[in-house]
Amino acid sequence: MHTGEGSSAHDPHRDIPEATVARLPVYLRALTSLAERNIASCSSEELATAAGVNSAKLRKDLSYLGSYGTRGVGYDVDYLSYQIAREIGVTHDWPVIIVGIGNLGQALANFSGFSSRGFRTVALLDAAEPMQGRTVAGIAVRPFADLAEIVTAEQVSIGVISVPAAAAQDVADAMVEAGISSILNFAPAVLNVPDGVDVRKVDLSIELQILAYHESRKAAEAEESVDDGSGEGVSA
Amino acid sequence: MHTGEGSSAHDPHRDIPEATVARLPVYLRALTSLAERNIASCSSEELATAAGVNSAKLRKDLSYLGSYGTRGVGYDVDYLSYQIAREIGVTHDWPVIIVGIGNLGQALANFSGFSSRGFRTVALLDAAEPMQGRTVAGIAVRPFADLAEIVTAEQVSIGVISVPAAAAQDVADAMVEAGISSILNFAPAVLNVPDGVDVRKVDLSIELQILAYHESRKAAEAEESVDDGSGEGVSA
Repeated sequence: MHTGEGSSAHDPHRDIPEATVARLPVYLRALTSLAERNIASCSSEELATAAGVNSAKLRKDLSYLGSYGTRGVGYDVDYLSYQIAREIGVTHDWPVIIVGIGNLGQALANFSGFSSRGFRTVALLDAAEPMQGRTVAGIAVRPFADLAEIVTAEQVSIGVISVPAAAAQDVADAMVEAGISSILNFAPAVLNVPDGVDVRKVDLSIELQILAYHESRKAAEAEESVDDGSGEGVSA
Repeated sequence: MHTGEGSSAHDPHRDIPEATVARLPVYLRALTSLAERNIASCSSEELATAAGVNSAKLRKDLSYLGSYGTRGVGYDVDYLSYQIAREIGVTHDWPVIIVGIGNLGQALANFSGFSSRGFRTVALLDAAEPMQGRTVAGIAVRPFADLAEIVTAEQVSIGVISVPAAAAQDVADAMVEAGISSILNFAPAVLNVPDGVDVRKVDLSIELQILAYHESRKAAEAEESVDDGSGEGVSA
């Protein structure tokens, strides 16, 4: 059993809150931008601004990684990047398969952001014959029936679903059966998976709805300031 | 000035925390799923489970909308859907343009989830001549140079950027210049925009990194249980 005594600052077994986990990739992206501008160290305020969070939350999040920065100097950009990447696990190489090679699947296959974060797309699968044998992003599209074989051969643990909603559950079932334990689902469908399998759902309309909320607010405020300007009151 | 006195339960001027705003579309999606299964009312626990949050947080979030449910009955699915959609502003019709009609732009143009939430794609724009005149999702692709004309004619306030990173800032500048005040950015680039313009960035690799974190944890736990099983201790 793990007792916690004598554990190093980097203890992979303790729990990090899910909200913090979700922000770590955002910090990593902000640090990468700083490194690209040849910035070697940054204050928590600078990093927080770059990541779009408040600095108290940033410091709290980083404290889970045992990263406290140096007073008067701040955080070392390269070292903190390494700490976060190690914590997330993207210092590994993660073989990924993508099932459903329509427009979205092709966009994902071509997306450079995956490979730069340790994700290696090892196979593209599509159930439709016209797609099979075609090459996307330098990778041949293979029949969906080859799924289990590929997962075993390449030791794939992460699968991406970019098929239509009606096919998504069948694809998820086949992935789980083949041994995949993490699924990134772009299909507008809720998936049922056994315990121990993680599913993250990407809903491209949710961000648009958040923008719509702010647009509504802006429109309401503009109307209100027009009302104020006209001097006309609103009767109770 | 708005005094707050005599305001109705639905006051569009009060502040809702950003984290709550981000969850409202998730509740709306869960309610839509319930309605599709002909479920007319639900408890906060049922809705919280469907949305993947805890029920205390759900009740707190909905209290900002003045929605408290009915004791012993719960929430009316249709009415709560309407309240949330009104709060987000998706009971409006939102004209949207998409700039960059590569694979991702085409996937977005074809994405039914936008139109079902009040977003109407009024134009697709691409700077590359080979794309212009092509039809995607029933909409003709027009030259990027037509941006300002289209934004004015269609009263577009929301723009989607799905161009390569190097072109994203120029597209954002043109959008802001044309009068767009909300931008959904799929390009892997940080955009500089003036105050009053909202930008939401979608990074498709972030969800994958969150999955990688959980995969790393699962791998570490599996190793640990193997260690336990073998009876071999780890020397201090």
